[in-house]
Amino acid sequence: MNKNTKVNAAILIIGNEILSGRTQDTNTSTIALWLNSIGVTVKEVRVIPDIENVIIDTINILRKSSNYVFTTGGIGPTHDDITAESISKAFGLKYEIHKEAFKILETYYKHGEFNEGRQKMVWMPENSKLILNPTSGAPGFNVENVFCLPGVPSILKSMLGGLTNEIVGGDPILSNTINLRTVESEIAKSLTEVQDKNKEVEIGSYPFFQAGKLGVSIVIRSESQSKIDLCNSEILEFVNKKNIEIVNKN
Amino acid sequence: MNKNTKVNAAILIIGNEILSGRTQDTNTSTIALWLNSIGVTVKEVRVIPDIENVIIDTINILRKSSNYVFTTGGIGPTHDDITAESISKAFGLKYEIHKEAFKILETYYKHGEFNEGRQKMVWMPENSKLILNPTSGAPGFNVENVFCLPGVPSILKSMLGGLTNEIVGGDPILSNTINLRTVESEIAKSLTEVQDKNKEVEIGSYPFFQAGKLGVSIVIRSESQSKIDLCNSEILEFVNKKNIEIVNKN
Repeated sequence: MNKNTKVNAAILIIGNEILSGRTQDTNTSTIALWLNSIGVTVKEVRVIPDIENVIIDTINILRKSSNYVFTTGGIGPTHDDITAESISKAFGLKYEIHKEAFKILETYYKHGEFNEGRQKMVWMPENSKLILNPTSGAPGFNVENVFCLPGVPSILKSMLGGLTNEIVGGDPILSNTINLRTVESEIAKSLTEVQDKNKEVEIGSYPFFQAGKLGVSIVIRSESQSKIDLCNSEILEFVNKKNIEIVNKN
Repeated sequence: MNKNTKVNAAILIIGNEILSGRTQDTNTSTIALWLNSIGVTVKEVRVIPDIENVIIDTINILRKSSNYVFTTGGIGPTHDDITAESISKAFGLKYEIHKEAFKILETYYKHGEFNEGRQKMVWMPENSKLILNPTSGAPGFNVENVFCLPGVPSILKSMLGGLTNEIVGGDPILSNTINLRTVESEIAKSLTEVQDKNKEVEIGSYPFFQAGKLGVSIVIRSESQSKIDLCNSEILEFVNKKNIEIVNKN
């Protein structure tokens, strides 16, 4: 893939605990911010249960519809960790002991602690490329355009840095935010006009409520800083005309 | 639908701000916990951008594959709020002013404040059923098995109570959590045995890290309290045998 083409990704969150509402997913935001910084747009996120045929079918859809797929969850040692076996089946690959991963964990754990449960974590699709884990040893893995990461947020976060060179993105997606002391309905018409004139820039409008006051964040996103700047000045023009206050927001 | 059948739902999060990582979705967890309490299981969540044909296609898939669909986002007054028009197109319905919604907002806003921007919020698929909004006036809407809610978490939350009687769920999904001072690999084998003996119960295993110590939460889920209890006692049996400490967790 050449630089400057649009590159996209899908994120697949695997885990009943997200679907039950018990656990709040935070990995989507972590992965998306990292991908944006290396020029990859997230076009879709799906959350699915720990059910083998659902994982297989979803992987086989997403790996064809997106340039990259990132999965989270289901690569630990327990019975509900079925991502690696499901990915093997999705690709029609053998599910087997990964020798390099075995060596890593054999060294990582103290003598006698690399037990049966932990050994499950080195079973992967044949010829997987490992994704190293600087936090807790057990690596993730990569098959073609699919990258499988753990569900624990702090561990996942620590593994992304090592992946940056594996991903060929386009230009980074830049953004600019303007926070206004107003309500959306006051600026809706003017904002539509700016969006209509700047079709290649994505303008989002997000109401917020901070310290007892309403406001609106306008977010301008594009690969081109000059297009953002142009859009920004057109927005500031109507903001000034309407006497709307610009505010800081955390 | 009769009680006691399994009833499921899909959640569709519509919004570029989630895909960019800028905003952390919390509505999935809110909706899922509420649905569980009224006997509906979430089988799938998708996050998609504010793009009309993507919304139309996804709605037309999910409304056929799930008993219920809940959407969040895209029903405000700005140019990027295109959920209502897209849902109209998905169902082949006219997109028009909803008279009852118009009256509600005409009364809600002070004289002169029900401006053009706000009037956009009363455009809906023809014959929609309104979902009342006790927080900020503008209602959501319901067409067949699709329920469209706003993206702002506090507003969405306040609207769910009014919907409870509209949803026919099965038996509530019950759960029990056991928090252990151990690591997953220590209990993986025993837990697999319990899961194999209790196929109708969903057992999840989730590592946690609290106050500097590792632990594992085991979550048992089922519509049947007696099945949960049986499973619970089988887990406690191996926990005792292995001398694993049971701990409290926030």
